[in-house]
Amino acid sequence: VPLETVKIVLVETSHPGNIGATARAMKNMGLCRLSLVRPNQFPSSEATARASGADDVLYRAEICADLPQAIAGIPLVIGASARDRSIPWPVLTPAECARKIVANSGQAAIVFGREHSGLTNEELDLCGYLLRIPTNPHFASLNVAAAVQLAAYELRLAALAGIPTQPVRTADPPALAQELAHFYAHLEQTLVELDFLNPQKPKKLMRRLHRLFNRVELRASEVAILRGMLTAAQRAAEQKIRADE
Amino acid sequence: VPLETVKIVLVETSHPGNIGATARAMKNMGLCRLSLVRPNQFPSSEATARASGADDVLYRAEICADLPQAIAGIPLVIGASARDRSIPWPVLTPAECARKIVANSGQAAIVFGREHSGLTNEELDLCGYLLRIPTNPHFASLNVAAAVQLAAYELRLAALAGIPTQPVRTADPPALAQELAHFYAHLEQTLVELDFLNPQKPKKLMRRLHRLFNRVELRASEVAILRGMLTAAQRAAEQKIRADE
Repeated sequence: VPLETVKIVLVETSHPGNIGATARAMKNMGLCRLSLVRPNQFPSSEATARASGADDVLYRAEICADLPQAIAGIPLVIGASARDRSIPWPVLTPAECARKIVANSGQAAIVFGREHSGLTNEELDLCGYLLRIPTNPHFASLNVAAAVQLAAYELRLAALAGIPTQPVRTADPPALAQELAHFYAHLEQTLVELDFLNPQKPKKLMRRLHRLFNRVELRASEVAILRGMLTAAQRAAEQKIRADE
Repeated sequence: VPLETVKIVLVETSHPGNIGATARAMKNMGLCRLSLVRPNQFPSSEATARASGADDVLYRAEICADLPQAIAGIPLVIGASARDRSIPWPVLTPAECARKIVANSGQAAIVFGREHSGLTNEELDLCGYLLRIPTNPHFASLNVAAAVQLAAYELRLAALAGIPTQPVRTADPPALAQELAHFYAHLEQTLVELDFLNPQKPKKLMRRLHRLFNRVELRASEVAILRGMLTAAQRAAEQKIRADE
């Protein structure tokens, strides 16, 4: 998973809580390289509190004097930007950004700007691409740590996409067709014995019950529970017949 | 865009800052319905500060005494859970969760638990599906507002993708939460009368049955059929008791 080389750069962050929340968001998704360009306040107890256990990311964060220092030697630099820019620029969605970075073996940085004013045009000039996160046009400004969270989430998805997914839970396999057929026969028989189903006209009710239980994709263990319930109802119905006699 | 009907439910949130950050995350993605179940502190200046302009979402948030109140009448309820549960449960990724909600015309709630302990098993019993956000297994616990941010982001992507919505079958509407609650109570009572359920230890079996029937998204007409079956079984059980006497 090429996430450990991806660098997250925060430029002139005002609130130390956002630095801590960024560290937590990164570690939650498997990222660990954080650069802070002229942070307003760091280290800070507020950053540590909001990191909530991602102290190692904060501890290893590098402090830089400017953006060129933070991205020195990194071949792919992507700047997060909420604003429309008049100069045409290649704009990536979070998913496209993530795929590009994973395709680049994680040799990349994503740069996030100031809480209120984002990145300057001079800083954006250092970025090969813009990352734009789709938002409500009437309330577009994301918290910086929330923006990092979304970018890191898409990075994790893109990295995992190359890894085969977990096998199906064999401990609780789906019911086989034959098991389902036996269940439906048992259900029909029980409903007849309970005087709930007219054996002359079983079709309409049984069709509705088929539709209901087919939707649920029953596990084999669940069929066993349901058939146990049916057997209990049959025992009661049998006693009822004896009582009636 | 069917996002305005989607409800976000926060259960027993400790830190008011997380409530504010949730409101901001929601509004950034076009969501507006927030329910707070027994918040530790609300309203709060910290919540308002972190909402950063999403005051309207906070102002209109409803305060609920418990989860059933928050989800009353909502046909699709999805619970966020980081933990592996031993009992099988349909688990959705954030993207799957979002597609399911958009296909359901936004008639849905996503429920997020306490900062340190998540949702209880009793609360999860009220959820038809689990939402699991993929995270670093060595540092899996997301901030609650960050989890809301990711779920809301996927909802926005799904809504923008223009997935055709299911026609609302007004002739056969989904069962309401209250109808489901009555069905489960009737089921439990019947199983006790059939001597199938030990009333001293009802929990494990009833939990499995909750999960089974929650998956099926029962229609109101189907609940009526199932309850008719239960009544027939109860009549048989009653005769059985008389026969035993």
